[in-house]
Amino acid sequence: MAIEGKDQSGVSRRLRLGMVGGGQGAFIGAVHRIAARLDDCYELVAGAFSSDPDRARASAADLRVPADRAYDSYEAMAAAEAARDDGIDAVAIVTPNHVHYPVARAFLDAGINVICDKPLTTTLDDAMDLVATVERSGLIFGLTHNYTGYPMVRQMREMIAGGELGKVRLVQAEYAQDWLTTKMEDSGSKQAEWRTDPARSGAAGCVGDIGTHAYNLADFVTGVPATEVLAELSIFGEGRRLDDNAGMLLRYANGARGVLWASQVAPGNENGLRLRVYGEKAGLSWAQEHPNHLTFTPYGEPPRQITRGGAGSGAAAAHATRIPPGHPEGYLEGFTQLYTDLAEQISAKLEGRDPDPASLLVPTVRDGAVGVKFIEASVASSAAGGVWTSLELPTS
Amino acid sequence: MAIEGKDQSGVSRRLRLGMVGGGQGAFIGAVHRIAARLDDCYELVAGAFSSDPDRARASAADLRVPADRAYDSYEAMAAAEAARDDGIDAVAIVTPNHVHYPVARAFLDAGINVICDKPLTTTLDDAMDLVATVERSGLIFGLTHNYTGYPMVRQMREMIAGGELGKVRLVQAEYAQDWLTTKMEDSGSKQAEWRTDPARSGAAGCVGDIGTHAYNLADFVTGVPATEVLAELSIFGEGRRLDDNAGMLLRYANGARGVLWASQVAPGNENGLRLRVYGEKAGLSWAQEHPNHLTFTPYGEPPRQITRGGAGSGAAAAHATRIPPGHPEGYLEGFTQLYTDLAEQISAKLEGRDPDPASLLVPTVRDGAVGVKFIEASVASSAAGGVWTSLELPTS
Amino acid sequence: MAIEGKDQSGVSRRLRLGMVGGGQGAFIGAVHRIAARLDDCYELVAGAFSSDPDRARASAADLRVPADRAYDSYEAMAAAEAARDDGIDAVAIVTPNHVHYPVARAFLDAGINVICDKPLTTTLDDAMDLVATVERSGLIFGLTHNYTGYPMVRQMREMIAGGELGKVRLVQAEYAQDWLTTKMEDSGSKQAEWRTDPARSGAAGCVGDIGTHAYNLADFVTGVPATEVLAELSIFGEGRRLDDNAGMLLRYANGARGVLWASQVAPGNENGLRLRVYGEKAGLSWAQEHPNHLTFTPYGEPPRQITRGGAGSGAAAAHATRIPPGHPEGYLEGFTQLYTDLAEQISAKLEGRDPDPASLLVPTVRDGAVGVKFIEASVASSAAGGVWTSLELPTS
Amino acid sequence: MAIEGKDQSGVSRRLRLGMVGGGQGAFIGAVHRIAARLDDCYELVAGAFSSDPDRARASAADLRVPADRAYDSYEAMAAAEAARDDGIDAVAIVTPNHVHYPVARAFLDAGINVICDKPLTTTLDDAMDLVATVERSGLIFGLTHNYTGYPMVRQMREMIAGGELGKVRLVQAEYAQDWLTTKMEDSGSKQAEWRTDPARSGAAGCVGDIGTHAYNLADFVTGVPATEVLAELSIFGEGRRLDDNAGMLLRYANGARGVLWASQVAPGNENGLRLRVYGEKAGLSWAQEHPNHLTFTPYGEPPRQITRGGAGSGAAAAHATRIPPGHPEGYLEGFTQLYTDLAEQISAKLEGRDPDPASLLVPTVRDGAVGVKFIEASVASSAAGGVWTSLELPTS
Repeated sequence: MAIEGKDQSGVSRRLRLGMVGGGQGAFIGAVHRIAARLDDCYELVAGAFSSDPDRARASAADLRVPADRAYDSYEAMAAAEAARDDGIDAVAIVTPNHVHYPVARAFLDAGINVICDKPLTTTLDDAMDLVATVERSGLIFGLTHNYTGYPMVRQMREMIAGGELGKVRLVQAEYAQDWLTTKMEDSGSKQAEWRTDPARSGAAGCVGDIGTHAYNLADFVTGVPATEVLAELSIFGEGRRLDDNAGMLLRYANGARGVLWASQVAPGNENGLRLRVYGEKAGLSWAQEHPNHLTFTPYGEPPRQITRGGAGSGAAAAHATRIPPGHPEGYLEGFTQLYTDLAEQISAKLEGRDPDPASLLVPTVRDGAVGVKFIEASVASSAAGGVWTSLELPTS
Repeated sequence: MAIEGKDQSGVSRRLRLGMVGGGQGAFIGAVHRIAARLDDCYELVAGAFSSDPDRARASAADLRVPADRAYDSYEAMAAAEAARDDGIDAVAIVTPNHVHYPVARAFLDAGINVICDKPLTTTLDDAMDLVATVERSGLIFGLTHNYTGYPMVRQMREMIAGGELGKVRLVQAEYAQDWLTTKMEDSGSKQAEWRTDPARSGAAGCVGDIGTHAYNLADFVTGVPATEVLAELSIFGEGRRLDDNAGMLLRYANGARGVLWASQVAPGNENGLRLRVYGEKAGLSWAQEHPNHLTFTPYGEPPRQITRGGAGSGAAAAHATRIPPGHPEGYLEGFTQLYTDLAEQISAKLEGRDPDPASLLVPTVRDGAVGVKFIEASVASSAAGGVWTSLELPTS
Repeated sequence: MAIEGKDQSGVSRRLRLGMVGGGQGAFIGAVHRIAARLDDCYELVAGAFSSDPDRARASAADLRVPADRAYDSYEAMAAAEAARDDGIDAVAIVTPNHVHYPVARAFLDAGINVICDKPLTTTLDDAMDLVATVERSGLIFGLTHNYTGYPMVRQMREMIAGGELGKVRLVQAEYAQDWLTTKMEDSGSKQAEWRTDPARSGAAGCVGDIGTHAYNLADFVTGVPATEVLAELSIFGEGRRLDDNAGMLLRYANGARGVLWASQVAPGNENGLRLRVYGEKAGLSWAQEHPNHLTFTPYGEPPRQITRGGAGSGAAAAHATRIPPGHPEGYLEGFTQLYTDLAEQISAKLEGRDPDPASLLVPTVRDGAVGVKFIEASVASSAAGGVWTSLELPTS
Repeated sequence: MAIEGKDQSGVSRRLRLGMVGGGQGAFIGAVHRIAARLDDCYELVAGAFSSDPDRARASAADLRVPADRAYDSYEAMAAAEAARDDGIDAVAIVTPNHVHYPVARAFLDAGINVICDKPLTTTLDDAMDLVATVERSGLIFGLTHNYTGYPMVRQMREMIAGGELGKVRLVQAEYAQDWLTTKMEDSGSKQAEWRTDPARSGAAGCVGDIGTHAYNLADFVTGVPATEVLAELSIFGEGRRLDDNAGMLLRYANGARGVLWASQVAPGNENGLRLRVYGEKAGLSWAQEHPNHLTFTPYGEPPRQITRGGAGSGAAAAHATRIPPGHPEGYLEGFTQLYTDLAEQISAKLEGRDPDPASLLVPTVRDGAVGVKFIEASVASSAAGGVWTSLELPTS
């Protein structure tokens, strides 16, 4: 190995973490827990892991959370933890989408920092309320648009900010999956059930579930806000109630143009999130399924492959990596990065110091509101037959 | 080698070919000549290679075309060749776009079969007139949407027609280049000059030059007609008069939805034509820059790579190939396939027999009109701010 | 997501782990600690992190190991931990190669399970002594040939054992890096210094450092033992004392033939471990830098891409994975798998039950001796000018 | 398109070409004919297409060769063509290997230039005799090691000659196919029959058929001669008489080391010729199945992809290409390049002028003798159980 490893953030004590949702049978809860653990800066000490009390308790036991901090409801948890001297430093919210808002609001009101899965909420009103609450409280609020934690994504952002593409002209974003090609929701898949259910997912299906990731990724990487969307949402699963495919055109504030495709009915695509950005001077191309590689194409020069930690990989990527080039990091490490950066933010606040500036790239509650606006605008554009629709946030 | 080679079509004599355009300094003329020669079924015997008489004659000498069949104008050529006993069997039209129509019309009127570069014409009226002329005359008219000649493209078509995807749901087409990233038209590039000039290219730039290829390819492969387009055409080259980037949404007759992206300002893309089609049961993905490979993704099974001539490659691909799998064929061979298939069609007509059915896949004058309609509809949709616009042809 | 996540092994309590080596500035120690932590089945409670007492203590503090269990020497640690009621369940040995033997022997003699980095020892005598010691003691001994922990590697093994390749005929293994292209050992790289120093690395450089990984990987995957090696070791770094490149031919017990290339002077290769195995009926190809994908090539059928967790991926791979297909796992997860499987083996022993059979694939002390024999035989073969040399272990 | 096309060499008249072998049912004859035709610098006017007179005549008719120049034997053809005023300028020899020598000798003795398929002969004595004959006669002799005609192969050669790799250290060559995985020679494949028959192929199977291509390619690209080979040839097809797999180590004159693997029993490999070369400063990697791309890996910089005609592609590649970057050329174009370069060499001789220096890269009769020596040395090395064997040519 040419370089040395690292396995820990610089936080001085492990933060105490609570979790709402994520009990037995859940997917994303396990991911959040690994992300909290991998860099050794959190310990899970409390939880309301399920709305079913028996499952909540059994899950806590599995997770070695003490019985007296295994709660039956998030309300009880927020109250009790806020009252303890050794109460949690932060709560991770990993429930279905429609529950994000009340849980987040409850913990913010209790003075507890929040780490929330995306999308932020199912309505823009709720989202703006959280923005206001966070800004009023001064609490840390991190939204786990986890793909922003990949080193090569941060590399893209750094290169664009550094002017290596010149003015950005084109954004080509796509997020294609295939797992809803058939009616999975009729065959007992819990994941498919809630993600295709308007009551639990909100007004959008595919657009909210994965389209927002692609949109957020482009936003994060380019630093250029989108101003308008024109969307065509479709449903291919017979009898399905939420979109499972979407084609979108985007207009950006600087005159750039974009195309975004999101689909859950494209056979052969497992988790095909891909972003290409082109500017006056160069292009960048990245694919989530091969996250350690980034293609940089300066106009008139041979394309170059930048690898995580390899030649051409800069400080922003180095901040977000643990092991040398050629030793692939993946989804869990990218997810971890958000947790670790939030640990630094929270620790800095607790210790009354400035956080490491490199830790400040975690998506915020405002990014979450931008995402909710994107969903609402897409649904509205498509419902109107495909018209350009503003993406501007209300002034909060 | 596991299989045997072939180097000739079955035509009983070489056809006599004339050419209009394609003199010194041209690009596509050379390609047409190689395509005519590669399978040994044509000989080039006449030409009006340039509108500049000196260049026309010098080009003829270079090409070993006899001086008495090197014409100063296409009108003279059409008249003289029609009058000869050994007159040309077909003419290849490789001029800038705005000249396609009068040349094609002149040779059709002279009773001579036509092989014409794309796009067919610069106006729909002209295109429909050619459709009517061809249908009235019974002559052969081939349009060199050359990407349809690739074996793996024909394989895609055959698989979809054979039901291997089930009903087609999604079309993702893109054609990205980078050669107009800067203002090439101001630096002496003849290619850039005429392709960005409305007088010679028509109402569209990138959409007409390459967008039509992508659109035609999707049409050819899926067999499902598009009914409406919604387009956002942009100009990024400062002062440029024709679009150099376009994002489009498509609706198909069977309910399928499509996204098409065409760009000539995307650094790092040389000739990035790529097509992905997804159906109820499977997907197919193909990229022109790696034309010998096709990815087939049946839902719930591991993705399979089909290679030209390899396992899983069928009769339509075999018809369009010369050498065994693993020995790459390329652009010139794909282009050749159209010429060779047209040689079979023309020979069959001359000999009063039925052509090999496999030779009938060459794009026709009607396909050309469909392409011109696509260009006009895209320009109109974008000019209207992005509205759904019909792609239906007028009844001719 | 179509499938559910998991984030923990089934062990009933976290095992207590100690570590020898791995203090500040080390690379592989950090990796071992993440691997121990990721699935939440160990806690690090003791260590002799450096032979330098100050660094040992500072490292312990960084790692939140209590001061009273931060030892100055491995001998002291083995004695003290063996005497505690809450002594460590296992020790991880992450020192330079030449120290593996005495440390391993000391902890085995103290009745403590061992997790040891590769290569096992620097001499075959030492290796065989460890084999005998482990077999006599009944203790668990895991060797971190970490690449065997990748899900797709286990998939290969399962497919070959299941007969999907028929009889194995060919093994093509390679492990190429570039970090010793220049004389890194003269420019202050600690890693380069000890890895090119015979006193600390043993008789081989590149062969011992990475060649053994490739050899072990082939052995693990095919289940067919190699019987003879013929090696050409070379030194390209001027004045370097250990090989930095090796070409080898291999003969296998079943008549198969192999080629193994290991290099640390091949510019452009970061960590290029790649294995291809061909049998009578099919082939398999895998590359460490894209570990979530495996290419399966049944003869006469289109090549298939098997992804971790995707279609065609079986039970052995599923055992070794945490997240759904399309969400890449990487090097740390593969490394973790060995730790987690060892946790199951150790827990089962502590609880007097049979371990999960799926946990039994971790390389053993005997695999370590096979690796040391491979190094010695390669060095001997090359020193003799390139002659076939037996790979058989002495009977212990 | 950013650049202009070309479709013809600069030769002033088409050369008259004859052919020996290549009648109905043959593979490589068709390839040679396309190669002669593609750049329009030959016309096929005579042939002895088969040793079976009926097939010879029928093949001539298919190929539009006049009946009076369709010969029953190569001896008759050499005599008759040498006597004609309009006799052939060159003969292409595309027979099975064992016939190359007598045919080549006959035409050379008749004063006719020769284009011969590889391997040159089946014995070194015959090869050296041809070397002497050619050198005595001053005739042009081209050997169709066709992979040297690929633009990116010439690019590699140019870069190495220009010092971009520094001193070459490592050569990793492989040529893997799968078509002899089963006993194709027992199922009616003519190709398999003669290629596995010592009487027609010579002393080697896989090594002579494809190993020589890989060896020649490395030689062509690096410009560094190999001095010794150590080979392990194997037969996996039961009852097969010639090797179908070979592992080899190579030593080069400048101290470089090489590994060469050739196989025809590796399922999933169609025509997997791949070359990697590493020097003190950089590496190059190329694969025949994706011939338009070349990876250049300067040490300490991001890997760069050089495409045919794209940025970083130089004069040697440009000489060997017809169409712009992104428009793939393939096997036939690479093969054509040798024919076109030989046309220039022959034309220059006929016209008493110096040939274009860029045309001089075609493998010569001496390269053929080097290849035959490689085969003999490999067979001898393997027969002796794997010993280093000299590759030096006898002084002729």
